[in-house]
Amino acid sequence: MNPLTPDLQHWLDLAGIAVFAISGALLAVRKNFDVFGMAVLAFATGLGGGLFRDLVIGAVPPAAFTDMGYFLTPLVVTVLVIFLHPQVERINRAVLVFDAAGLGFFCVVGTIKAHEYGLGTVAAASLGLATAAGGGVLRDVLANEVPALLRWDREIYAVPAIVGASSVALLLRYDALNNVTMTVSVLVPFVLRLLALRYNWRAPRAWHRRSAATEDGAGAA
Amino acid sequence: MNPLTPDLQHWLDLAGIAVFAISGALLAVRKNFDVFGMAVLAFATGLGGGLFRDLVIGAVPPAAFTDMGYFLTPLVVTVLVIFLHPQVERINRAVLVFDAAGLGFFCVVGTIKAHEYGLGTVAAASLGLATAAGGGVLRDVLANEVPALLRWDREIYAVPAIVGASSVALLLRYDALNNVTMTVSVLVPFVLRLLALRYNWRAPRAWHRRSAATEDGAGAA
Amino acid sequence: MNPLTPDLQHWLDLAGIAVFAISGALLAVRKNFDVFGMAVLAFATGLGGGLFRDLVIGAVPPAAFTDMGYFLTPLVVTVLVIFLHPQVERINRAVLVFDAAGLGFFCVVGTIKAHEYGLGTVAAASLGLATAAGGGVLRDVLANEVPALLRWDREIYAVPAIVGASSVALLLRYDALNNVTMTVSVLVPFVLRLLALRYNWRAPRAWHRRSAATEDGAGAA
Repeated sequence: MNPLTPDLQHWLDLAGIAVFAISGALLAVRKNFDVFGMAVLAFATGLGGGLFRDLVIGAVPPAAFTDMGYFLTPLVVTVLVIFLHPQVERINRAVLVFDAAGLGFFCVVGTIKAHEYGLGTVAAASLGLATAAGGGVLRDVLANEVPALLRWDREIYAVPAIVGASSVALLLRYDALNNVTMTVSVLVPFVLRLLALRYNWRAPRAWHRRSAATEDGAGAA
Repeated sequence: MNPLTPDLQHWLDLAGIAVFAISGALLAVRKNFDVFGMAVLAFATGLGGGLFRDLVIGAVPPAAFTDMGYFLTPLVVTVLVIFLHPQVERINRAVLVFDAAGLGFFCVVGTIKAHEYGLGTVAAASLGLATAAGGGVLRDVLANEVPALLRWDREIYAVPAIVGASSVALLLRYDALNNVTMTVSVLVPFVLRLLALRYNWRAPRAWHRRSAATEDGAGAA
Repeated sequence: MNPLTPDLQHWLDLAGIAVFAISGALLAVRKNFDVFGMAVLAFATGLGGGLFRDLVIGAVPPAAFTDMGYFLTPLVVTVLVIFLHPQVERINRAVLVFDAAGLGFFCVVGTIKAHEYGLGTVAAASLGLATAAGGGVLRDVLANEVPALLRWDREIYAVPAIVGASSVALLLRYDALNNVTMTVSVLVPFVLRLLALRYNWRAPRAWHRRSAATEDGAGAA
């Protein structure tokens, strides 16, 4: 059971889409794209993860195309970033906090929706992770950048989402999802991501790379 | 109501696929890909936008996989470009005119098909835009280039498609789509795109970038 | 009729996913990604082709999300490559042989599955090719590399898959698929790919490129 009221879930959805859309629009500014490029990246980042999930579970047309709020949110974000991007950049730290909240929220609701469509525990958790991280990967692929999700020199992003999605999937399996356990499932990835940002937690790479020269050179390849 | 006869629509479809496929095959030549790379880019550019639309609206298997003409068109284009690419490059201006026609046509038929599958006005217009511009984005992503659609230093492409798709979506909403209004909806984006090419119309970027140095440098990032 | 027993097909599926996943994980090591980047590329390479096929034919949720073995295989591969990648690199030649076997197997089973979902001869063969080659394309796009499939300076990969997929599609059409003809259909692309690797077979590029300088320069563009 999804313990969120439809109304509350909808507003949290829009908030999550908004913070992801900001990161897309800001990357477009940094890449010197025009305002339509900004809108495309805002839409892709805000809605891409949920779109992928909905195509996989067969929920067509996907929510991104049936809810007016989902359409307007990236649009409003784009307009705001067009005029206020220096200010938005300056509060980049705050944006990262909101993005961490979006990460926690989306990995949980993505898992719940996949479970509602009949997917098993592992598949639902995988789609929760894809919902949370897919938009950012699409953003980077469209902007012709190496996805931040894959890069070694970025703070961990997948781990908090995996923790959140897996715990919700297990709670669903053992029928233990309620307001309390779900809130905890959102907060744990949120806090993990904030700690990762604060203390520069990075995931390890493959074991025993033999020479430092190779390491430094590989990034440029 | 779709005022096109099925036969006429099919021939216009094939013409649109052909001009998009040409741009894919030519990019493959410029990137020094082999003939199979040319074919892959021709298929992706010609059919990618419609494939995305069909997956989103749940029209599976997508038209790209059920119509023999859709399969043969990019193939024939690839063979022609293999042997005639210097000539095709020389008539690049003519190809751009055909591409503008394809843009106008696809944003209109994409919107109509999405509407026939029950999507609302805004969602149908968005998918019309995706039908028209999606193939080119997929082409650039596969070729590891920054999508031309997003770049500031390219003539506007999204605006004409947005105008065409939105007007058709509104005409459908108010039940006013007929031969005349539909032809106008195809011609307006076509002419807008030609004017954009002729007069180098570009979309603005985010407001008030502070230093020219940043601007010039950002493109290389 | 699919002459494979379900059990045998499943084990061959897993073997094919494993060898594709190895190539994804190894590319991640070369790109200096962290262990989660390795897992993402292993999943994308091992499961991407079949995922695309399943979305196109409307087989949702795709097999990649309903079979526990499909999930565990890329995971086990990632763990092995994390600890043994120098050894895996050293047997890279052996990996290429397995990859060739995966290519032959996937182009055949992909075609059969598409045919079972009602697609025609050409569409089924196209999806067989997409099943075999799609994972590698997704791997390269995610890693921000020009897809090896498109590059002129790589041994042919598409041709063996096209041969295998087309012959199976024709065998299905003329109701002549049995244990013998199917085994031959797997072996022919396998052997073709091995010969291509052994003798550096490359596909031609567009006809009559005028200057060698252009050719050499284009690759760096």
